Amino acid sequence: MGQVERAGTLVGVGVGPGAPDLLTLRAARAIEGARVLAYPTLAGAPSFARSIAAGFIREGVEEVAIDIPMIPAREPAQAAYDTGALRIAAHLEAGRDVVCLCEGDPMFYGSFMYLQARLAGRFAVEVVPGVTSVSAAAAVAGLPLGAREGRIAVLPATLPDEALAEGLRAHETVALMKLGRHFPRVRTLLDGLGLTGRATYVERATLAGEVVRPLAEAPAEAPYFSLILVTKDADPWL
Amino acid sequence: MGQVERAGTLVGVGVGPGAPDLLTLRAARAIEGARVLAYPTLAGAPSFARSIAAGFIREGVEEVAIDIPMIPAREPAQAAYDTGALRIAAHLEAGRDVVCLCEGDPMFYGSFMYLQARLAGRFAVEVVPGVTSVSAAAAVAGLPLGAREGRIAVLPATLPDEALAEGLRAHETVALMKLGRHFPRVRTLLDGLGLTGRATYVERATLAGEVVRPLAEAPAEAPYFSLILVTKDADPWL
Repeated sequence: MGQVERAGTLVGVGVGPGAPDLLTLRAARAIEGARVLAYPTLAGAPSFARSIAAGFIREGVEEVAIDIPMIPAREPAQAAYDTGALRIAAHLEAGRDVVCLCEGDPMFYGSFMYLQARLAGRFAVEVVPGVTSVSAAAAVAGLPLGAREGRIAVLPATLPDEALAEGLRAHETVALMKLGRHFPRVRTLLDGLGLTGRATYVERATLAGEVVRPLAEAPAEAPYFSLILVTKDADPWL
Repeated sequence: MGQVERAGTLVGVGVGPGAPDLLTLRAARAIEGARVLAYPTLAGAPSFARSIAAGFIREGVEEVAIDIPMIPAREPAQAAYDTGALRIAAHLEAGRDVVCLCEGDPMFYGSFMYLQARLAGRFAVEVVPGVTSVSAAAAVAGLPLGAREGRIAVLPATLPDEALAEGLRAHETVALMKLGRHFPRVRTLLDGLGLTGRATYVERATLAGEVVRPLAEAPAEAPYFSLILVTKDADPWL
């Protein structure tokens, strides 16, 4: 009993799409007050989530970097989350809260979910929601996501063509995520569906180097932090 | 030339799902610095967006309340936005920025889009994205919205049964918005699809009086600020 009552809380904090002032007040306070911070890194690269939050991180805070290998197989990433969860659990068992930094929103394609799945049964979990990359892209592009009876779909571009085409057919607005190496295929698909003229490419929304342009004028390669917004209904909100 | 250069900017500010500390830092600063605030009210009731932002509103700020009639026909609401846009335009023409408060995110089923559509051609527009009610509901329910190849749909419950059923079939996660008088019909539909056990009801997420419970245990009536999260894949994130 005593041990459970003294255990720390796992706090998943969304740091938003990139601009530090798009953190919520709650997120900023949680990070400023943290004694232990955890965050993912990809194949040893600096953590994007940490870089967004850097201005709120106090000196001397303990940091748990969970390095995720960038290989297609799932097992090595799962092993990395297993190890990361063990390191976090040690802090929680010692009564220390652990603030886990997440790009965007923790529940929206975030790595936090993998930690939550491993720890929620034993420890208290809190989630501070954040601004997603989809909301950020809509804001910088000036494009409504949904109004009235409009349907919105969020689809990873890693899905096969048929699944993407079905989603594009059935929704007024579609956000295509995780473009990466699927970008050329998705462009061909949108062209074939006659939707290129309705598609906007957004890269690094709200960050330095932000790119917002019609898909037809997009660069040949899409980095990880990019997405396509397809808004089929040109005037849905008048 | 001179007039255009001196014109004010229309700033759509998302105030998030309800808790005042879920405003972004950028939103809080925009509101604190505003000389003119605009916001919708529904049929004369107090503005929910204004109540979320109240702690950041300075004394003496000019306020433009745009009252939207609560009737099914679209024309009276359109007329109200027309009038509101004219009142806002007068401030913008006089060189005053106008900060428009929006529940959640301005581009996500927000009334801001109706003002933007009327004013964007003549005035500069900026959008400060916010945390949506969907992210807030996922946070308080501890439910992932999407991971890996998971597809997410956001569907207004005002759509006919067939459209809702198609969306529920094709996506791992569905957020059903705008429940209101459609709530009993949606519950019957989910029951028929065998999805009640996968459905979570969330009301007033992050606010006093928050309700989070399995749909089977939801109250009989759903207020405006409620939604259902259907998460079909029980363990998508391990």
